[in-house]
Amino acid sequence: MSNPTAAILVIGDEILSGRTRDSNLHFLAQELTRVGIDLQEARVVSDRHDRIVEAVRALSGSHDHVFTSGGIGPTHDDITADAVAEAMGAALGVRDDALGVLKAHYDRMGTEMNEARLRMARVPEGATLIDNPVSAAPGFSIRNVHVMAGVPRIFEAMVAGLLPRLTGGTPLLSLSYRIQKGEGEIAGPLAQLAGDYPDLSMGSYPFNAGGSFGANIVIRGPDGARVNEAMTRLAAIFPE
Amino acid sequence: MSNPTAAILVIGDEILSGRTRDSNLHFLAQELTRVGIDLQEARVVSDRHDRIVEAVRALSGSHDHVFTSGGIGPTHDDITADAVAEAMGAALGVRDDALGVLKAHYDRMGTEMNEARLRMARVPEGATLIDNPVSAAPGFSIRNVHVMAGVPRIFEAMVAGLLPRLTGGTPLLSLSYRIQKGEGEIAGPLAQLAGDYPDLSMGSYPFNAGGSFGANIVIRGPDGARVNEAMTRLAAIFPE
Repeated sequence: MSNPTAAILVIGDEILSGRTRDSNLHFLAQELTRVGIDLQEARVVSDRHDRIVEAVRALSGSHDHVFTSGGIGPTHDDITADAVAEAMGAALGVRDDALGVLKAHYDRMGTEMNEARLRMARVPEGATLIDNPVSAAPGFSIRNVHVMAGVPRIFEAMVAGLLPRLTGGTPLLSLSYRIQKGEGEIAGPLAQLAGDYPDLSMGSYPFNAGGSFGANIVIRGPDGARVNEAMTRLAAIFPE
Repeated sequence: MSNPTAAILVIGDEILSGRTRDSNLHFLAQELTRVGIDLQEARVVSDRHDRIVEAVRALSGSHDHVFTSGGIGPTHDDITADAVAEAMGAALGVRDDALGVLKAHYDRMGTEMNEARLRMARVPEGATLIDNPVSAAPGFSIRNVHVMAGVPRIFEAMVAGLLPRLTGGTPLLSLSYRIQKGEGEIAGPLAQLAGDYPDLSMGSYPFNAGGSFGANIVIRGPDGARVNEAMTRLAAIFPE
């Protein structure tokens, strides 16, 4: 399979302190699966310049796309644009197109532009803006790094605008089957089945519901007929 | 501040495909904050041997503690123990203490030991077992890497048993204050306040509720009196 690969970098002390529960990773994971982009890694780092620079460099070098979430607002702890610009070796400054978008928005709202709001018009040289239909302040794509807001409603709107611009791959087809037995009963036959279908991925996701153990078995692959065939065999081994 | 530092490594395709929403990161973040261990990074990688080895090596070299979640069950896609053993340069084999725990559990349940279940008794040389009060199969600590199950109920029980063994630091005190203004109004005065209190961290976490914008400002630090003083000044600038 040669689907494009991706990583997500979530930036924010509030996630690592347990104050906030991130939801952008889960949202993006589902969207990327839908368009056939293979999310291979996620990282969460704190609001520290060197940590963000290091993570952006590492992830942009090893994946086709990197999506970042958080740290592009007007406050002193919003340092993502600076860090991404440094990581990508690009100059950062207020850009006319971003400034125009913000000014038009504040004019409509009857709000005045101030120094803090001006920070949100700083975009790295060579970057393409990502539309923000919620609160105007844009995200941006610089080469393979796509920088978006952390507030879930804004992040989700930005992703919706960005994804059609990216080239996806073949969405994997997946079927899942719930087995009410401990994984210890399932493991042997499942490993044998996985050996018979090296073109498919088979995962076992155990659960504990009401004190009894079971597992959801997920079979995934690009060829629906093969996925179907393997799942039919699994269901015959473990009838409901 | 010299609190111990930590990272969490969540292992599992199901998180990256969007099938499952991880909850172990958020749970651990809250627990570590409570005991004064500074969670600095989180990563999620897929069930691939080389990815797990690389992440364990990188994180265990740069943090006092690494906590892993997932991939220690009996099925063919449970490869965490193998990868951690390789990353830490330790031999992996069935160990009598782990086997004893499992055998006693299966005897009580009237379940037989089989080859798949035996996989869960494989523990790296030199590791200390982590108790699993839910389903017996133990986790383990090898040097600064603590390997635990992915099922949230089991992960949480393992963390509860493990944390008292680790040396914590000074829990940070934090106060938060909700301001019903856009961050663009808050940013200037907040940056000035942050400049006056270099010993404290001040974060601004914007939200959008019912169409209007606001932010929660969180002030954190080891000295409660300082946190209080700064928050009193903030509240005077932005009265409710």
